Amino acid sequence: MGSLVPFAAHMANTELPVVQGFRFAAVAAGLKKSGGLDVGAIVADAPVAAAGVFTRNIVRAAPVQVAEQRVNSRPIAACLVNAGCANACTGAEGLAAAKSTTQTLALALGVDRRAVVPASTGVIGLLLPAEKVNAAIPALVEGLSEDRAQDFAKAICTTDRYPKTAHHSLHGATAVGIAKGAGMIHPNMATTLGFVVCDAVATQGTILRALRIATDRTFNRASVDGDTSTNDMIVAMCSAKAGGRKMNVTALVDLFEPVLSVLARMIVADGEGAKHTVRIRVEGCSRARDAETIARTIATSNLVKTALHGRDPNWGRILAAAGRAGVKFSPGVAKISVGDVVIVERGVGVGVEAEAKAREVMQGAEYAITLRVGSGKWSDHYDTCDFGHDYIDVNANYRS
Amino acid sequence: MGSLVPFAAHMANTELPVVQGFRFAAVAAGLKKSGGLDVGAIVADAPVAAAGVFTRNIVRAAPVQVAEQRVNSRPIAACLVNAGCANACTGAEGLAAAKSTTQTLALALGVDRRAVVPASTGVIGLLLPAEKVNAAIPALVEGLSEDRAQDFAKAICTTDRYPKTAHHSLHGATAVGIAKGAGMIHPNMATTLGFVVCDAVATQGTILRALRIATDRTFNRASVDGDTSTNDMIVAMCSAKAGGRKMNVTALVDLFEPVLSVLARMIVADGEGAKHTVRIRVEGCSRARDAETIARTIATSNLVKTALHGRDPNWGRILAAAGRAGVKFSPGVAKISVGDVVIVERGVGVGVEAEAKAREVMQGAEYAITLRVGSGKWSDHYDTCDFGHDYIDVNANYRS
Repeated sequence: MGSLVPFAAHMANTELPVVQGFRFAAVAAGLKKSGGLDVGAIVADAPVAAAGVFTRNIVRAAPVQVAEQRVNSRPIAACLVNAGCANACTGAEGLAAAKSTTQTLALALGVDRRAVVPASTGVIGLLLPAEKVNAAIPALVEGLSEDRAQDFAKAICTTDRYPKTAHHSLHGATAVGIAKGAGMIHPNMATTLGFVVCDAVATQGTILRALRIATDRTFNRASVDGDTSTNDMIVAMCSAKAGGRKMNVTALVDLFEPVLSVLARMIVADGEGAKHTVRIRVEGCSRARDAETIARTIATSNLVKTALHGRDPNWGRILAAAGRAGVKFSPGVAKISVGDVVIVERGVGVGVEAEAKAREVMQGAEYAITLRVGSGKWSDHYDTCDFGHDYIDVNANYRS
Repeated sequence: MGSLVPFAAHMANTELPVVQGFRFAAVAAGLKKSGGLDVGAIVADAPVAAAGVFTRNIVRAAPVQVAEQRVNSRPIAACLVNAGCANACTGAEGLAAAKSTTQTLALALGVDRRAVVPASTGVIGLLLPAEKVNAAIPALVEGLSEDRAQDFAKAICTTDRYPKTAHHSLHGATAVGIAKGAGMIHPNMATTLGFVVCDAVATQGTILRALRIATDRTFNRASVDGDTSTNDMIVAMCSAKAGGRKMNVTALVDLFEPVLSVLARMIVADGEGAKHTVRIRVEGCSRARDAETIARTIATSNLVKTALHGRDPNWGRILAAAGRAGVKFSPGVAKISVGDVVIVERGVGVGVEAEAKAREVMQGAEYAITLRVGSGKWSDHYDTCDFGHDYIDVNANYRS
């Protein structure tokens, strides 16, 4: 992409379009110590085509195990989501709790119990207190409304500094996305939950393929890569209320990708303690996979991230991280830019003046660092954030 | 190993045995802003059998390129080491500086220029000011003494809080090791330099094989894995002054390993901002490699390391890190202990009392966390440290 699409507008935008066929609700069930909203639901007017992508971690939370069995195999009527407790590593009791709470909602809605998808986020090892969730479900159902997506977004937050929503319309269809995740700095570890509701007409298979492609281009290119915590999942549901022709995969990707892109970058920007959102671009690779590998290695380097925090154009760390990525390239041709400021040419530093200009760029809340490693045609990017004290504070005492 | 061998005694031990055949020196050549000792030399009475292991990063500092050509191909007379400047990513000028300074020392010693091994540590991208080093070499040579290993150890420090030395004697031979490295938290990124001088009789091939084995068991099992920064190297030299029979690989490993083990753990303990040194043990794997992979993944997880900092027995993070290691195991049989306190049995938490006891163990400066993942016969370990504010402070403004 040529430039970073600003997402600040989306962050401030609390007005979401109504997506025909869906209602939302949220309640405080007593799972969060704060007493805030902690259980949310998305309910379809009738079971709809849906699909989900899930963590690749072999330690899979109970809700992931249950959701995975359901979402890609039948029409889905609702998602039941809680924060404050991951219900992961909780054994048979955890599975029972995920089944019990979704069954309670299914009964209240009058749908098949397997049509309700559970999702949880919070501390690993804590068993979901099913009785608290079950007790809250009447109020949850009573509160369902097509304009309460923002409350749902708040209910699923954990260490998030703000709820995350985005929307996009195309070809007469509208998609609204809601996510949580507070950009834990190490990739593949943040619990990320994402939900997309859409009024497009699409088959389950098309939704699944489009969701996979759009996720790979967005959430899997951010340092909160959703694919390997114990609880991560993204679920998309299509109500078909927009009518018209069935959407193909390409069209649905075009609808989903902008939504997921904004959500993923909101998560990075909300990185615990983060003050800068930085896109690491790698260009000139001879294989597509190489560009992704180098970008990811730089974007997840603690030494790079602390330098971003210090607004230090420490290109030696960038080059050193690239050098240990396991990809062959000639360091002697490397070129590095911070924004538009070239600081490294042919593998060596341009000088202090360029670095002073780069330091200016690095004051910004959003900028890009570009590494060119050769003349190959492949490029890729990875979004990351800086790494400061607050990350330690949030994570050293997360359970206290 | 059964229990952690305390290394505090070694840290306080400034009395090193003399190793026949070697002298040391250190001077302040003006490379460190502090004005402290920054150039050191180890000089053999005559060229000796030597071997080196080097970073696997494809971005290789000039001294690494020069040292690698020399150390494993001919007898070595000296190592010339500087801190304050890594001389990495410095192109042809960097190579010329490494060659010029080693040649100056070779001339002063009256040896082949290729018998001097260069090593550098410090900021990447800074060219070694050869003229400063060359100007300091007469004083360096004049100061050579068999009892100045501690000064050499100080000269090669960068962000280290203390110099690092260790020694071991066996079979009538003595080895002294000197290292630098301040435990940058992300593995494979710290610049680690290590030097072992020894009076054993051994061939170059034997030294190289023994050094590789001992390094793999020690430096490559610590979160300052020496194998992939731009400048890492470990060089071992054997003067043969102890006489007696030629040592075989096994005997030389027995001599080197305790020295490198203590040095590696001193580096971890000196982790920037670290207050706890933690051995992550993984047991019960069906393949040796799996145990190493899981241990490394846990030991390098920021979420685990911040929990160690907070003295929080957050076993969910340990299990989640293990689960994303890419190794298959059944989370339902996992057992986790902190010291001797079992906090997870069969994949679920034992309870708050056990966690309170674990929290006590985690107050300690040194302890072990053990994860058993099955009934296989393979186990391994990785040494790591906690992750606190000081890491950010040291690394955000390292170049300022």
